[in-house]
Amino acid sequence: MDMLWSGWGDPDKAAPLPDSVIGLLRDLLGVTPSEREPARLDGIPVPPSPLADDTLRALAECLGDGAYVRTDAESRIRHTRGKSTPDLLRIRAGEVDDIPAAVLLPGSHDEVLAVLRVCAEHGVAAVPFGGGTSVVGGLAPQVKLCFVALDLRRLDGLLALDEVSRTATLQSGLRAPQAEALLNVHGFTLGHFPQSYEWATIGGFAAARSSGQASAGYGRFDEMVLGLTVATPEGTWEAGRAPRSAAGPDLRQLILGSEGALGVITSVTVRIRPLPSTRIYEGWRFASFEAGAAALRRLAQDGPRPTVLRLSDETETFVGLAQPDKIGNSDAPAAGCMAIAGFEGTDEDTADSRARAREVLLACGGEYVGEEPGDRWAHGRYNAPYLRDALLDAGAFAETLETAGFWSALPALYDAVRQALTATLAEGGTPPLVMCHISHVYENGASLYFTVVSAQGDDPVAHWAPAKRAANDAILASGGTISHHHGVGTDHRDWYTEEIGPVGVRILQAVKAEIDPAQVLNPGVLIPLR
Amino acid sequence: MDMLWSGWGDPDKAAPLPDSVIGLLRDLLGVTPSEREPARLDGIPVPPSPLADDTLRALAECLGDGAYVRTDAESRIRHTRGKSTPDLLRIRAGEVDDIPAAVLLPGSHDEVLAVLRVCAEHGVAAVPFGGGTSVVGGLAPQVKLCFVALDLRRLDGLLALDEVSRTATLQSGLRAPQAEALLNVHGFTLGHFPQSYEWATIGGFAAARSSGQASAGYGRFDEMVLGLTVATPEGTWEAGRAPRSAAGPDLRQLILGSEGALGVITSVTVRIRPLPSTRIYEGWRFASFEAGAAALRRLAQDGPRPTVLRLSDETETFVGLAQPDKIGNSDAPAAGCMAIAGFEGTDEDTADSRARAREVLLACGGEYVGEEPGDRWAHGRYNAPYLRDALLDAGAFAETLETAGFWSALPALYDAVRQALTATLAEGGTPPLVMCHISHVYENGASLYFTVVSAQGDDPVAHWAPAKRAANDAILASGGTISHHHGVGTDHRDWYTEEIGPVGVRILQAVKAEIDPAQVLNPGVLIPLR
Repeated sequence: MDMLWSGWGDPDKAAPLPDSVIGLLRDLLGVTPSEREPARLDGIPVPPSPLADDTLRALAECLGDGAYVRTDAESRIRHTRGKSTPDLLRIRAGEVDDIPAAVLLPGSHDEVLAVLRVCAEHGVAAVPFGGGTSVVGGLAPQVKLCFVALDLRRLDGLLALDEVSRTATLQSGLRAPQAEALLNVHGFTLGHFPQSYEWATIGGFAAARSSGQASAGYGRFDEMVLGLTVATPEGTWEAGRAPRSAAGPDLRQLILGSEGALGVITSVTVRIRPLPSTRIYEGWRFASFEAGAAALRRLAQDGPRPTVLRLSDETETFVGLAQPDKIGNSDAPAAGCMAIAGFEGTDEDTADSRARAREVLLACGGEYVGEEPGDRWAHGRYNAPYLRDALLDAGAFAETLETAGFWSALPALYDAVRQALTATLAEGGTPPLVMCHISHVYENGASLYFTVVSAQGDDPVAHWAPAKRAANDAILASGGTISHHHGVGTDHRDWYTEEIGPVGVRILQAVKAEIDPAQVLNPGVLIPLR
Repeated sequence: MDMLWSGWGDPDKAAPLPDSVIGLLRDLLGVTPSEREPARLDGIPVPPSPLADDTLRALAECLGDGAYVRTDAESRIRHTRGKSTPDLLRIRAGEVDDIPAAVLLPGSHDEVLAVLRVCAEHGVAAVPFGGGTSVVGGLAPQVKLCFVALDLRRLDGLLALDEVSRTATLQSGLRAPQAEALLNVHGFTLGHFPQSYEWATIGGFAAARSSGQASAGYGRFDEMVLGLTVATPEGTWEAGRAPRSAAGPDLRQLILGSEGALGVITSVTVRIRPLPSTRIYEGWRFASFEAGAAALRRLAQDGPRPTVLRLSDETETFVGLAQPDKIGNSDAPAAGCMAIAGFEGTDEDTADSRARAREVLLACGGEYVGEEPGDRWAHGRYNAPYLRDALLDAGAFAETLETAGFWSALPALYDAVRQALTATLAEGGTPPLVMCHISHVYENGASLYFTVVSAQGDDPVAHWAPAKRAANDAILASGGTISHHHGVGTDHRDWYTEEIGPVGVRILQAVKAEIDPAQVLNPGVLIPLR
């Protein structure tokens, strides 16, 4: 099944907003139905592929079968950009200036290597494409070269399973549910459940340093990775010979987060864990975001560490985003801040952690509100992107952004980003609702995830741009990182270069020049070209 | 206090071997007292410093005071090579072909920057020097350029302490006990206690990816690092803005393990933890190394994870190295394999972990043998290098080497390394005793640490070389990494290049060329020069 070309996910799962929410949006934010006619897939004027015949032939030869080189309009539209809100608004408006010249479907690591060699020889850029879920412009290289999308869906095998060491080698085109199914058969799980779970791929998780909703228990994806195999125009790059090593810099960590700019990840060896026998999610209410954050910090620093741990601020709790199924459906507005604590594992370990976490949360002023909010959260955990489509359909603008910082920096970071978003959008005539939650905690800090909803205004893409820039500036000025789990892409590149500084940028450019001298690997993504 | 120039540690702590051990060495391994007369510090013929006057002047200007540029023989001898057994044998023989041209003592990050600029201009290599404890040739660059040692002891400050986020920023020249003292005052600990603890520095831990004896609980040093500041000839390189980030590759991991070849680390921001209120170490006996390893694996994979977890093989248990104070002093030879499990933390957490670990260890066939072996281990934990000096003095050869691998690969790795060492040394006429322990465990694998004792033979350095090469070959052939915590230096460089492959080597060379175009940063260490 293909993802909805103009929005998120399974087209059959799309659902309009209830009238109550539409009324709320109108009264609160001045949202009115859009009068723009959305483009139809078959009505988008797609220019012919700019690839020369000899290039197409050479690429087809790499893949053994011409059927794996696609230049039809629909294939190319479906591989245009990612799933940020500006991406959706642009494709709905029929804008295809970022369309790939062709879509290639390599079937092996060696085929990817061969394709990259041809790309380098013919001056064609290559953009790895997993689930197509980037929300930071990671699929829209900013170059004059024409480019091809390397759709990795045929790289969908479980290459090795080591039950003693608890490792699995997965090909990079496996979608997360496919990977889980392959592991579940043997009694194992990866434990990686980001909001993009239903569509995103193993390679994408590695390339963009994904973080799942159960990161408190299972860790971030980059913490699960033990080895990687990468295809580059200069040959195969393999990293990771032992779980840990003192043999030089950890080159795995140079591949993780490289977003296709330093090579195409073709397989990943990951740590796996036994399937949990118990999963319990429960709700806790705190008087304030500050009080709730202090409780999360205590669990993150002194334990026990739940598997899932998240906290919505007052606004998000009030709106009900902490429990997606409850939006527009609550009996009374929720007060305070809702936290979800989830426990997965053996029956015994889960009972033990839960009991000890309960003591800590009570001591921190938490009020236990039962499993119902937890179950609702778990049930609706992948629904937010569908909700965004419905909001866009209803004429609202909705987007998310995120950061992370040290615990002591979080209050100022929280205030600065909210302030930047609110002031900029209000100034533009569309005062927003800004909500926030903490969804990933560490001993030394946590992430902040913001959701912004406003009216669309005349030109929502142009309208959002200054607010996004102001938020990015606020993040850096307050000591946060420009992304905790969405990545850099092209949208965050300017702030990323500021974050890592001139020496950091030169180092990455030098690495790229060494393994990609023709600069065909997702050029302009992550770092500026030299 | 300075380290013993011809051996390890505090000269006052040196102690000769008991006669019983000398007898055992003679009977078992044919060790006879060496007839070589050891060199005296004041008798070593040190060539004059090859530094030109204008270079010396320029370096002195960087440091503000000529007293921080030292060219006297003793200072230079004390900064010659590290503390591997071949290093000790060479310096005891008065060999100073690797002697630095001068010893510099910069007092700030900016002074290090200035020194590196002068070095690049004048074509002088720079070797960062912390505790001088490298055992892999990390302080002996293999180049024709003359070089200066940058002794970082004056960089000894606690720059920042964030009790909320539990982080501390430490200057790189702090020795571990100094750093602990600075943190202990505030109720915190780093929890990093490698065998080199008494002498090694924060910068060295980061540069060589050190791993401490409490790594099961506190993690490896590279896992504690949240940020680094590095001086390079091309300017300052800073990395680490948040505990975790999806903003591109993790450049911290490129600095960690770079061994001075990519810059001089001047400060490190680390995760700190509350001082434990309880420390308990206990002994467990297993019928075999295999059975003990299975028990350790179970704790590493399913918990609870003790703070310290180690297991000696049959030979090491028999000899008593599992309890250094017991060597030559045991009532009866120890049978089976001795494991040490240590628990540190709050009273409550420690009691809980200990009780649950006890169940697991019993279920895995372990026999509890009380706290006495644990206390003996803890008491003697930093003594092994002193013991080596005594062995060398008594005419024995003693050296260690280590690796790590996935759990499923460990049995073959263990056999291959033992076999390589035994066969090669026996062939050379000095059959060895080879002992091994596991001292660092992970979910997916563990380290193996080998100790080799034999007679010295006529030329012990030459005698050891083929055995070391054979062990390194065996490590790579069996899927291990060339070092779990000693590092690469010059001794492991050839195997390291094989481990990371040609693309990996090119990448590191490209990074070095970018930030060190004159190739003055510890040249020839880690990677071959291009």
